This record gives sequence, structure tokens and C-alpha cells, in this order.
Amino acid sequence: MKRLVILAALVGALPALADEGMWTYNNFPSAKVKAKYGFEPSQQWLDSVRLSSARLAGGCSASFVSPNGLVMTNHHCARGCIEQLSTAEKDYIASGFYAKAEAEELKCPAMEINQLSDITDVTEQLNKATQGLSGKQYSDTLKAEMSKLEKECATSDQVRCDVVTLYQGGKYNLYKYRRFQDVRLVFAPEHAIAFFGGDPDNFEFPRYDLDVSFVRVYQDGKPAQIPNYFKWSKGGAKEGELTFISGHPGRTSRGLTVAELEYQRDVVMPKMLMTLAEVRGMITEFQKRGPEQERISNNVRFGVENGFKAIKGRHETLLDKKFFASKVAAEQELRQKVDANPELKKKYGAAWDEIAKAQEQLKSVRKELGYMEQGQGFGSKLYGIAHALVRAADELPKENGQRLREFNEAGLPAFKAQLFSPAPIYPELEIARLEFTLTKLREELGPDHPFVKKVLGKESPGKLAARLVNGTQLRDVKVRQSLLEGGKKAISASQDPMIKLAALVDPDARAVRKNFEENIDSVIKKNSELVAKAKFEVYGTNVYPDATFSLRLSYGAVQGYMEDGKKVNPITQMAGTFERHTGEEPFALPKSWLDSKGKLKLSTPMNFVSTNDIIGGNSGSPVINKDGEIVGLVFDGNIQSLGGDFGFDETVNRAVSVHSDAILESLQKIYGATRVLEELRPGKQPPVKAKPAG
Amino acid sequence: MKRLVILAALVGALPALADEGMWTYNNFPSAKVKAKYGFEPSQQWLDSVRLSSARLAGGCSASFVSPNGLVMTNHHCARGCIEQLSTAEKDYIASGFYAKAEAEELKCPAMEINQLSDITDVTEQLNKATQGLSGKQYSDTLKAEMSKLEKECATSDQVRCDVVTLYQGGKYNLYKYRRFQDVRLVFAPEHAIAFFGGDPDNFEFPRYDLDVSFVRVYQDGKPAQIPNYFKWSKGGAKEGELTFISGHPGRTSRGLTVAELEYQRDVVMPKMLMTLAEVRGMITEFQKRGPEQERISNNVRFGVENGFKAIKGRHETLLDKKFFASKVAAEQELRQKVDANPELKKKYGAAWDEIAKAQEQLKSVRKELGYMEQGQGFGSKLYGIAHALVRAADELPKENGQRLREFNEAGLPAFKAQLFSPAPIYPELEIARLEFTLTKLREELGPDHPFVKKVLGKESPGKLAARLVNGTQLRDVKVRQSLLEGGKKAISASQDPMIKLAALVDPDARAVRKNFEENIDSVIKKNSELVAKAKFEVYGTNVYPDATFSLRLSYGAVQGYMEDGKKVNPITQMAGTFERHTGEEPFALPKSWLDSKGKLKLSTPMNFVSTNDIIGGNSGSPVINKDGEIVGLVFDGNIQSLGGDFGFDETVNRAVSVHSDAILESLQKIYGATRVLEELRPGKQPPVKAKPAG
Repeated sequence: MKRLVILAALVGALPALADEGMWTYNNFPSAKVKAKYGFEPSQQWLDSVRLSSARLAGGCSASFVSPNGLVMTNHHCARGCIEQLSTAEKDYIASGFYAKAEAEELKCPAMEINQLSDITDVTEQLNKATQGLSGKQYSDTLKAEMSKLEKECATSDQVRCDVVTLYQGGKYNLYKYRRFQDVRLVFAPEHAIAFFGGDPDNFEFPRYDLDVSFVRVYQDGKPAQIPNYFKWSKGGAKEGELTFISGHPGRTSRGLTVAELEYQRDVVMPKMLMTLAEVRGMITEFQKRGPEQERISNNVRFGVENGFKAIKGRHETLLDKKFFASKVAAEQELRQKVDANPELKKKYGAAWDEIAKAQEQLKSVRKELGYMEQGQGFGSKLYGIAHALVRAADELPKENGQRLREFNEAGLPAFKAQLFSPAPIYPELEIARLEFTLTKLREELGPDHPFVKKVLGKESPGKLAARLVNGTQLRDVKVRQSLLEGGKKAISASQDPMIKLAALVDPDARAVRKNFEENIDSVIKKNSELVAKAKFEVYGTNVYPDATFSLRLSYGAVQGYMEDGKKVNPITQMAGTFERHTGEEPFALPKSWLDSKGKLKLSTPMNFVSTNDIIGGNSGSPVINKDGEIVGLVFDGNIQSLGGDFGFDETVNRAVSVHSDAILESLQKIYGATRVLEELRPGKQPPVKAKPAG
Repeated sequence: MKRLVILAALVGALPALADEGMWTYNNFPSAKVKAKYGFEPSQQWLDSVRLSSARLAGGCSASFVSPNGLVMTNHHCARGCIEQLSTAEKDYIASGFYAKAEAEELKCPAMEINQLSDITDVTEQLNKATQGLSGKQYSDTLKAEMSKLEKECATSDQVRCDVVTLYQGGKYNLYKYRRFQDVRLVFAPEHAIAFFGGDPDNFEFPRYDLDVSFVRVYQDGKPAQIPNYFKWSKGGAKEGELTFISGHPGRTSRGLTVAELEYQRDVVMPKMLMTLAEVRGMITEFQKRGPEQERISNNVRFGVENGFKAIKGRHETLLDKKFFASKVAAEQELRQKVDANPELKKKYGAAWDEIAKAQEQLKSVRKELGYMEQGQGFGSKLYGIAHALVRAADELPKENGQRLREFNEAGLPAFKAQLFSPAPIYPELEIARLEFTLTKLREELGPDHPFVKKVLGKESPGKLAARLVNGTQLRDVKVRQSLLEGGKKAISASQDPMIKLAALVDPDARAVRKNFEENIDSVIKKNSELVAKAKFEVYGTNVYPDATFSLRLSYGAVQGYMEDGKKVNPITQMAGTFERHTGEEPFALPKSWLDSKGKLKLSTPMNFVSTNDIIGGNSGSPVINKDGEIVGLVFDGNIQSLGGDFGFDETVNRAVSVHSDAILESLQKIYGATRVLEELRPGKQPPVKAKPAG
């Protein structure tokens, strides 16, 4: 299945071939697009597309599709919100949601939307500040300088600024975003059609999903006015058509050294896959406790299954011997060129071995680091909150530049929004997940490890988890607020068992992090920067950086591919959706679809694939034509594209999107969502009636 | 943690160094033992030890310890029996079991014990029969010839004969066993002390487990008379003492080619680990349904956790770059020597590449093969029974040599014993496991695969699993008997849903197996035989073969090792058991131990490690001194020994055993099992009383 060609591995080292690349907006290869497709995006075109694009802070992409703040994204990107707004009695995940009037739009408890307003290159400033430094000094200075730039830039709570590390530190850009924290749900179809085919069809094609949702950004209690937004195309994506995708790919690893790739392949990924597999088994069985337990854990299950399949695909790419050999060959070539030039050798020659040594060191601390510091609150939201409060009490009184990076002034609004989110937390699920992670902690570090003894004492993971979750008051947002306001004194005085545990173990967690940052991570960062600069000097700068969850533009065309010797057509039709219906999850269409079948134009395009280079994080990205109009909505990559983490193969890597016509057809004939349709295509609605959903 | 030295990889190619080797009884290096330890086992000594050794057909080792058929093995080897004899009301896993009189000994529903009575070398016969053949002809002839030899040898139901393939086909030996099918439970301690420390302590040392049980073999309704049995030593194993372990190591892979090892490392093991992790998550959560659900699934959970940890250790060894490089180097050296000699090159030169090609082919069919043919009944005992019955109806009417190998005449008694086992089958657990596997089937082969469509139809995995399990009559042993007797006609007429499904899909399963056996497995077998012969010609024959679940003898000494820079002492004491007690599973001692603490001599040795080379399957093996007396009972290997699948490192690989004195001390002072004690050490019991357990 994996046919990533050898050339793919040269990516990040040589100017990109074919439709490859997740390009930054300030280095887009317009001339290359023109040479291949006859259309050259102008600066004005790029600015307009950039401003019409959006990011969900939680990890997805989106787009503005009306001047009144209407935002389109995937159903699976909004499903956290949809689930949080649901209750046992009113489950919008199952039933779908449609606000027939503005007043019915419901505020998402924890959604933030960002719009990229400016990009500034700050490479020179940062390089100057860190010149000649290494180790702790290097990382402290880099951190302080970044914090300073971000703080200067973030002039209000409405603004978010991030220094983005591009090309592994070869370049640093300051990204300035407009923040929208009042986001309301407008429309979502039933989960059954949004994720039709479920996990078995995930990352596969042909495909038949209506993975769309609409939300709206508000400002001062009213729909925000958005001058730049995408208009809707007539007829949507056609086979062979040039397509652009503007979105926020989360992470690629195309520029990693061989030592780093080996570490991913042999250590990180096997561990992640085994953990995800076990959580998956646990959650799937947890869901059998009852319908309410199923409802409250569906989002976790989706995340776990999606992550598992994605990482499995990436792992298989790295296990492909030919592919890996091509990575080795590319690195050898670069190193030979560097070593052949005495000046380059002096500057960069040692960087690869330094990174390899740091990777070896990482192996010896990775378990402690993972469980004590990077473990995301032992899988418990409540423990995560407790740990954040304990840390904040120590960090916030410090000078901005001295704080742990996540407590920077510039990041505080986002930190507080998350900390004070009223999204429901379910004790039964919390206990199950906390027990699970505490059991893994004991298993991985061993029952005799001092940290394990400190956490567990003489309790079993299950009893401790139940005592913590049942005893804590942190589900109450007001309690969190008063603990944050009360600072160190309030934390020290707290008898909350979660707070007490977090305070007890935080010194160990900090020690592990400190060692990692000062002795390992700083070495990797510093030397990755050198490798990136060596690449620039040897191959030039007309390349794209690895994905960093910052805005990128990719180009390509609607085009099928060959799989197991057979042609896969690039566009499916609505008719196929009904053919795939068995009546059993995950192949059971919702009643609204079955009832409306007679009204639908079954030849309407449903989903399609294109050669655009994308990766996880691009979910919810608009697919647009050369006129900057919506022709589709990215919701997936095919299974071959998962290897895109490490390289791109235009022959088989494909972005998978909902066709714009499928959205119109279903909004109109199935959901009767005329209010949304009128915003998307003012004055162009045909006179068809349908029963509103929700 | 893994410190398998480079030399270890040469194992199987060069004469073994140090205490390495799981030696066959007809090629034991007595002279080497004498050179190192000053004791040379005589032929008489070897014969006596061999005949005193035993095998549990289900996959463990054991020993005869009295002339009246008393057999010692691990608690975890007998736990299938203990669980099958338990009910919700009387749970012997929790309470332990002790038959105070012979009449109270309970028959194990599915345990068979084998005693190796003869070994005959049949290499020449088989080589002659297959000379010049390849592909289907080679494998058919080999299979037919093996069946013939086994049938001629197995003169009654009391005899079992297996042709054992040694040295990857370099040698074939015919092993003749005496079979005991009436096996009764005599004594088992509580699970809480048998598996004290549970999964966290599994494969670790220091250790504190009383992993022992006693059963008795019966013949004609009376205790069988056993002339050869092990006597009990005075004082048990001492530090530095020479120890022998006689048992049935299940499988090692030290003779595999690099291509085969890569396939294990990159394909087989990741897949197994992910599946086991997911089943583990599922079963652990299934146990939360209630105490009875916990009881009926404990055995599955133990097997899954044990298997997961073992395979993870093996996988880590193969991921060790230095270790793997040593395997590559050893193969290169052998191939160079072969290629340098025109005669050898002609005979053997192509074998490695042929194996590599077959491994590549295997990749493309492995999923179908795994789920359709090797999947052990979709994880369902009932489906496994159905499939066996369907197959038997087709196979048994054929000539012996034409049948699928598992239906050979020689194997029929064991086949029937298993098929007609009255061991309880729990529908709730069956449904959960069947649903799980059917979901994986759909996930791995894809919902559009013809086999998946045939199995699932329009049903969901969950609904189908429930319908099959709730609808089948196969829990009733009489139904199974009448279906086996009724043959093809009865199977065709059966409306049992399990039978119907098995009959529906069997042709596909057979086709996949046929392709595998004729085009892949025969190539691997044939060429592995060539590689083995090349090794003999280059390095001589004074080597041991890979483990094959046949009787082997290893030698070594009671000796500690270094771990993370610290010395690990080789012997623990009973006192440590009490120190490790927290009161919470799996560190909660049973009441009997807590109550008896005052009576115990706390300095009694509890567990110990020795340098003997063992692997999974050796569980339950006796550890004996040079006088052929019991000094311990193998129940585990340390975590470093898991890499023993691929190589042996005497500096850290250790067998972990229960000390013989811990068995005496607890039988006497905790369990008051005087009847057992009197058999182990006639006339030597001190006059201490204790309350009987059970």
C-alpha cells in the first residue's frame, strides 16, 4: 500500500517537486504554480485567502464563509463543542443541530478561533540574541527573547502572538492572530453521516462523509464583521481542476535527521501505538456500561481511534526499508557536501552526531519525562487542571521571561480560557482514565520507583483514582478561579486531593523537565538549527518548512490514483452513500437521509480527492479554486498520505474533501438549513423545502 | 536494560559459550559441564532425569516428584484447570485448593501430561523421501512421511509420537511420549501468593512468588506408578551451586535468518503487541462488569498480560541496533564462507535470498492468513470448536497422509480430548471476545473484503457475535460428539449458527492456507534446512537447536547479576514477601500468610535466579542439583532473559525459580499439606501443625 518513492525523502533538502509542499504565505512558489497550472496567485490573492482562513486553537483549520462571521469547519473539529453542549436527554452528536435563528446559536464552552493578520520575520533578532550560546544559556535566552517578542506584539486579549520556529530553527517568524473566543454553534449534521463508515472507512477512499459544521464568531455579543471571506463556487470541484488548500497542518517530520527518525520509529511510535491500542480496548468496553457512558466517551474514542490509525500509517512508512534507505542516502549526501567544504564542515559538521547523542540520552529519561511531565495530567482533565493551578501559583509571580513557556503573558488569555472552560467533566470517565494511566505509570516506571511510590502510596491505582476524582472540587469553575486568584497561599492551604497530589509531585516533574530542556532539548534545537542552515547553504532557500500548526497554502489538482493495480476515481456521488448503507453502525445512515433520498439529486458529487500536500491539522481547511471560491472542505487524507509526515509522493498521497455541492444539496434538501444557505450564496436558493433537523 | 552482547548472536552458528544452550538429551555437552563445574552427567543420570521430567500438553513443563504419580508444576500452569474446577460460589483461584485425601483430588477437565520415553533420529528417512523435491511436492511428501512415522510409532491412545523438526530441518527426531489424560488437582495455593506482585512484578527480580501446584497422574482410576521421579534436596539451591533445568522451552528464534528476524521485528511483533494491548484494555475493563465477570476472565487476562510483556521484551531486543547488527554480521560471515567454497555455494548459496523472497510474499498474505486460518477461532472457543468439527468432517474420511497435519491419526487422541473437554465456556466472555475479533477482522481486511462481507453480511460485529454465541448448542459436549460422529452429513444438516458460519467460510480459509503452505512455507522450510546444513558444514554439529517445545536440558549456577549499576542478589527470603505487602492487589498477601507469619522461619529462601538458559514453556521445570534432587521450580525468566528468543547473554539472562525450601516451609506451616509433604520427603516431616487451606 505504501508506495512513497525514493525521491520523496529528499524533501526539505531539495527544491520541492510536483505538487509537494505546505508553503508559508511569505514564501509561496507562485511561479511554479503558474508553470504547471497556468495560474499565478498574486500578492493580493494570497492576502485575501490568508485573511479568509481560520484556525481552531484546539487543533483544526477553518474558513470564514460570510461577512457575518460564519465559519465552516469539519464536524469532527466541532465535535468537542457539540458533545459539551449535549446532555443525556439532548444529544446533538446523535441528532445533529441547526439554529433556525441567530438567537438559537449556542456558545461553545471551549472553542477559540484565530485569524492570521500578520507575519514578521524575527530570525535575525533571535539569532543575534543567542549567538555563541549553548545548553541552558542558549535555551533560556531563546525562550526569554521569544517571550519578549510575543508580549510586545500581544497588545490586547483580542490578539495572540506566537513565535513560530520554522525549518527546525533555520528561521523564526512572529505570527500575529486576531482571537475570537465567543464562538457559537450554527449547524451540525448527525454524527452518523458526518462520520459515515466510522473507523473502518477513516483514512480510506472512496468515501461518503458529510463531515461539515458551521459555527459563528461573535464580538461584543454580536456576529463579528469579517471583510475577508470565501464565496461559494458554482458547481464545486471538477476532475483535473487546480485546487488550493489553506490551512494549519499540525506537524511533519520531513526535516528530521536519521537519528531522530530512528528514535521515532523504534521508540516513540511503538510506545504510542501500544498505549493507544490499550486505551482503545478500554474505552470501547467502557462504552458497554450504558448509553450515557457511551455518549460521554465518544469523543475520546474517536480521538484514540483516529490517532491510532494515523500513527500506524506513519509507522509503516518508517518501517518501509526502501523509504528509510532514501532518508539515509539524503542525509549522507548532505553531510558529504558539508564535509567537503572546510568552512561548512567547521560550522555544521558535528551537528548530526550531536543530535544522535542527545537522542540516546533521551532514551534513558523518556519514561520519566513522559509520565511525570508530558503525560497530560495522567489522562485526567481534573488532574491536569490541578497541576496547571499548582504551577501557575509558582510561575505567575515570576518575571515574564523567567516563567515556563506556557505561562508567558502572551499565552495567558488562552491558558485561562482553557482553565476556566465550563465544558462538562464526567467523573466516571475521569476515574476510568486516571486508573488506567496510574496503572501504566506503575507498569512502566516499576512499583519501586520513588515517584510511583509517592503517587500511589499504598493505594491501588483504582482506589486512588476514585478517591481523587470523587474528592476534588475542581469540576466547579469558581473553585478554579479562586485558586488561581489565591495564588501560592491558596494552593498551599488547599485540602483538595487533586491539588495536594499535584503539589506533592510537581518538584519531581520540574526536575525531569529541567534536565530535559537544559541537557537534551537545547542540544537538539541548537543542532537542528545548524542542520537547517547547512541545508540552506547547500541547496538554497526555495524550500518549505516542516508543518508547525501555522497557516500554510498547498496547491494541487483533483485527481485519482492507482491502488492495488486498480484506478481509484477522484469523485464519489451521493448515490454511493446509500449503497454503502447496511443499517448497522458505522454504516447506518441517519433517518433524515433515508427519508430524503427521493428528493436528492443522487449524482451530486459527495467526496473527492486532490493532490494537495496536507497533514493532520488541515482538517476543516477550505478547498478553493483559482477564483478564491469554496469548492470543497478537507476532512481527511487517504491512507497513503499518512506517510506524508516524512515525505510526499504525488502518485498516491491525496487530500480527501467533502464536495461543496454535497454541502449545498444536503443543507437544502435534507436539513432545510435555509438561513445558512442564504449566507453562503445570497439570493441563489432554489425553492425546495425540507424538514429542519435538530 | 538490554545488554545482550554481540557474541550472543552467533548462537546456533558457533559452538555455544558459557552456560548457554537448551540441549537435547541425545546431544548433551557433558564434557563441557565437567570442564566448568567439575561434574559430568552420565548417560544413566541423563536417562533418569529425562524420565522424571514431564510436559503439560497445553504448554508447560513439570516433574514427577513421587512414585505415586505426584507431579509438580507452576500454579500458573495449572490455573486453567483450577479455574475450570471453580464456580462463582467456590473459587479455588482465590481460596487455593488442597485435597486432604486422595478421594478429594479433582479431575482437571482438559489437562494432559506427557513423559518422554524415547528419541529416535529419523533425519535420514525424511531426507531420503524428500530428496530433490521442492514446493508442494516437497511439503506434501514431508508431511506424509512424518504422518507415517508418527502413526507407526503411536501404538495406542496411551502413546503420543511427534516428529520434531530440529535445527530448522537440519535434523528430524521422532519423540515418543507416554500420555496421561487423567490428571487430578492435589494442591494449589491462593493466586494472591502464587502471582504475588502480579503483572508489575512479572519478569522482574527480586521476586516473592509461591508459583507452585501439585497434580497427580492416574491410570485406570488409580494413581499411576512412576519408577523415575525426582527426590527432594535438603536445603535447596545455594548461591554458586551447579543447577540443571529439565523442561520444554517453547520456541526460540536464534537460528532465523536476518530476513526472518526483520519480518518478526517490523511486521509480526508490532501487530501482536498492538492486538494484545487492545485485548488487554478490553479485558481489564470487561472485568469491571462484576466479580463473576472478573473471575471468568482472569485466565485470559493473565495470558494476555504475560504474552504482552514477553513479546515486548523480545521486540526490544530486536530493536537494539547493536544486537541486530551482530545478527547481520554473523549471517554475512556464514554466507561469505559458503560463497568462498564452490561446492557449498552451489548447494546452499541461494538459500538466504529464497527465504527473504518468501518473507516478502508472506507480507502480502499475512492478514488474510492470520484472520482466516491462524486466528484461533476469531478469539471464540465455540467458533474454534465449530471450525474443528467442520474440518474434521472433511479430513477424517481421507487417507492419513492426505489430511491436514493436525488431523493425523497419531494426533487424534489429543484432538478429541481437547474437542470434548468439559471445561466451562462462558457466553458473556465469548461474545465480548468474538465481537472484538470480528471488529479487528473488518478493520484489518477492510469492510469491502469478500471474506469480511461473507462473515458479517449486514450485521455488526456485536450483533453477529451475540447471535452466534447465544444460538449455538456447542457448549454441550454431547452435541460436539454427535457432530463428530455424524461426519459430513451431520455437519451439512446442522442448523447451528456457529457450524453454518464455519462451513461457509472454511473453503476460503483452506485456500489461503494452501497457498501459504505450498508457495511460501515450503520454500521457507526447504531453505531453512539448507541454511542449517550449511552451518553444520561450516561450524560442525556440536551445537544446540532452537527450542521446539520438546524436552531440553540446560545447566548453570545460582548467580546474581548487575542491573542499572547495582548488584542483584540471587536469592530472596520469605521476610521480603511480607515487606512487599501493601494490602492492595497485586501486592496483597492472602490471609493464610498474614495469619501464619509468626510461625514461619522468615529467613527461608523464597525465590532465586540462576544462569540456566530457558524460555517460555520452561515454566514448571524442576531445578535440580548434580544428585538429581529438586532444589527449585522454574516459574519465570528475568526481563533481560526475554531477548533469549534471539540470543543468550550469561551476564544478565536469568531463570527465576521458587526455592524448594519455600515450598516445604509453606506446605508445612501455612497450608498444613502434610499428605503432600510426606510424599515429597517420606518420614522427614517435623511435627508442626497448621490449618489446612482450601
